[in-house]
Amino acid sequence: MSNDYILQSVKDGVKIIKFNRPAKKNAISREMYAELTKILNEDAQNDSIVVTVLTGVGEYYTSGNDLSSASSMDADEDYEQMMDRRVEVVRRFVTAFIDYPKLLIAVVNGPCIGIGATTLSLCDVVYASDRATFLTPFVDLGICAEACSSYLYPRTMGRSKASEMLLLGRKITAQEAYEFGLVSKVVPHERLGDVFNDLMKYGQLPVNTLKANKRLIMTNLKDRLHEINVTELKQLKECFTSEEMFAALARFASRKSKL
Amino acid sequence: MSNDYILQSVKDGVKIIKFNRPAKKNAISREMYAELTKILNEDAQNDSIVVTVLTGVGEYYTSGNDLSSASSMDADEDYEQMMDRRVEVVRRFVTAFIDYPKLLIAVVNGPCIGIGATTLSLCDVVYASDRATFLTPFVDLGICAEACSSYLYPRTMGRSKASEMLLLGRKITAQEAYEFGLVSKVVPHERLGDVFNDLMKYGQLPVNTLKANKRLIMTNLKDRLHEINVTELKQLKECFTSEEMFAALARFASRKSKL
Amino acid sequence: MSNDYILQSVKDGVKIIKFNRPAKKNAISREMYAELTKILNEDAQNDSIVVTVLTGVGEYYTSGNDLSSASSMDADEDYEQMMDRRVEVVRRFVTAFIDYPKLLIAVVNGPCIGIGATTLSLCDVVYASDRATFLTPFVDLGICAEACSSYLYPRTMGRSKASEMLLLGRKITAQEAYEFGLVSKVVPHERLGDVFNDLMKYGQLPVNTLKANKRLIMTNLKDRLHEINVTELKQLKECFTSEEMFAALARFASRKSKL
Repeated sequence: MSNDYILQSVKDGVKIIKFNRPAKKNAISREMYAELTKILNEDAQNDSIVVTVLTGVGEYYTSGNDLSSASSMDADEDYEQMMDRRVEVVRRFVTAFIDYPKLLIAVVNGPCIGIGATTLSLCDVVYASDRATFLTPFVDLGICAEACSSYLYPRTMGRSKASEMLLLGRKITAQEAYEFGLVSKVVPHERLGDVFNDLMKYGQLPVNTLKANKRLIMTNLKDRLHEINVTELKQLKECFTSEEMFAALARFASRKSKL
Repeated sequence: MSNDYILQSVKDGVKIIKFNRPAKKNAISREMYAELTKILNEDAQNDSIVVTVLTGVGEYYTSGNDLSSASSMDADEDYEQMMDRRVEVVRRFVTAFIDYPKLLIAVVNGPCIGIGATTLSLCDVVYASDRATFLTPFVDLGICAEACSSYLYPRTMGRSKASEMLLLGRKITAQEAYEFGLVSKVVPHERLGDVFNDLMKYGQLPVNTLKANKRLIMTNLKDRLHEINVTELKQLKECFTSEEMFAALARFASRKSKL
Repeated sequence: MSNDYILQSVKDGVKIIKFNRPAKKNAISREMYAELTKILNEDAQNDSIVVTVLTGVGEYYTSGNDLSSASSMDADEDYEQMMDRRVEVVRRFVTAFIDYPKLLIAVVNGPCIGIGATTLSLCDVVYASDRATFLTPFVDLGICAEACSSYLYPRTMGRSKASEMLLLGRKITAQEAYEFGLVSKVVPHERLGDVFNDLMKYGQLPVNTLKANKRLIMTNLKDRLHEINVTELKQLKECFTSEEMFAALARFASRKSKL
């Protein structure tokens, strides 16, 4: 029922989706982007699924974009075409989150990096283990914010904490994410199981009423988020050809080789 | 000076308005909606009133909409007309909050449910007793958010805590309401009296300067809130004819009969 | 290198700007407004400066607008012309903050009043000493909010805490400013030095990537802030001719004479 790197299970109206690549800290490969996009878009039409819960297998929620997989060039494409493909994969991925019409709940079980952290503000509810951390090291890597975080982070956490993450690249703790509104519940790691059990009851919520209320919440927001998704990705493509990004990649590679 | 269910008193520029139906947990009847709407609209034109404080008599702030009173049909009306009337009563009630030009302060003395909780984000300042709780069980009841809460809750509390209330129907404590910005002061219940005393000094604020500053705060917001009030109530009317709402009412009635 | 009241120093891409008028609690004179506006506008074009840190010398961050200096009339101008000049000085000052394209970080070392407090929400990051306090006594003084605080305070802190500051004129502590998102780190006063040391590393951030990410954050915001800056100052000019403002000045003068 799933690409091995993405596990799915459904019970009583609640679907659990797990990033399942612990050996790679659940880094999101090209296939995982496509698979999760497909799952969300299909489940959006399947009202037997009322609640969708995202979490990670193992220590990490996700370490974000798998640089090696994402930037691998297909035989028949040049750098420009590879970039366009990458940007289009992310655009569809983020669009699936924005448009998802029912309850989308993230349970952040550990470190959460890059697009794992930015897509949290596209979820309805975010709970976290006290071991969770949140990191968006975009500027340092010569790239830029995505998944509408440049718009939603400041409006969720206030500009100061949002800028600490998006501009300074500061890693924040689960407690900080709670204090600044990105997360609305933090539990001791060993009690994460209770969170999943507790969420099961919401599988019985009346789905049309749920969708109507989510539509109201997304009024005045959804169209703006689609615009921002495109704006951010246009900027990301520019970053992909910038000297600063290549310099950052070189620094990153040299740091990795010393590990 | 007041319909018995709404008590009013004025002193040194400060009006105190109390929901006064403790036997029904201060549930808001048709008459109470109309009375409070009238008071706010009249006081809006009376600049001897600088500050208006809303609170409840007895244990509750308010248990929200009185289902029995609100859905009672007049002899000469059918269900559609009853719904239109109900929606119009709420539209005017919410409009009076949105347009109120001077200081509107809620002191939440106890449990606060439904439209009691949603109109808090239309107040300028919200203080709460540590016994206060906040509950908006819309989805479970087959109905939808109102009083612009679908817009203001996420922008005040962050999407996650707002969705816990508006979509999951989770009851939140005064401390949670403080941590997520809906409330900006929580006091031990026995010290609520000090809060009212402290508020008296603001009756001396220069009223035109106050109105000018509130106008600035409401710039870029007021027109949007009026739109959202209409959008939410259009959706509420649809909910009133939905199967899910009738099923929820049946569940609610059967739960009540077992109490 | 600086007007005595504004000190500047640059090292490794980090510029430190200090309000330096401790004898007057760092009240901002006409010359200081002009000097800081000039510095920000010049540094905006100088990409050897990646981070700009604002702080105060002595006990205060700043006590805000120096009433005596700001309202002194030049020989050749009447009251209306003096007001226009004052409003234009503030308009340019606030515009320089809004348009600043790189990292703007406030380190609030002590009490922070009026335009010192309101310009914080135009900074990217705000850190504070535990001795910092934040006060915007506009209504009491017969004047109105400025530096886009009427828009940014409610969207950063939630309407209730923002109204406590902007309408009630309540002084808030560093801890409250943290809890409501205006400030994202509070340190013991004696450890402020560590904050400055820690900020030095951000002078090495890739400046174009930083500017690209800040541009994304400011998308959908910058134009709105310029509009609000003009709206607020139009209202401020009206306040300057209001009876309530003159009455407030008289109260203020008589309180000062009793000190």
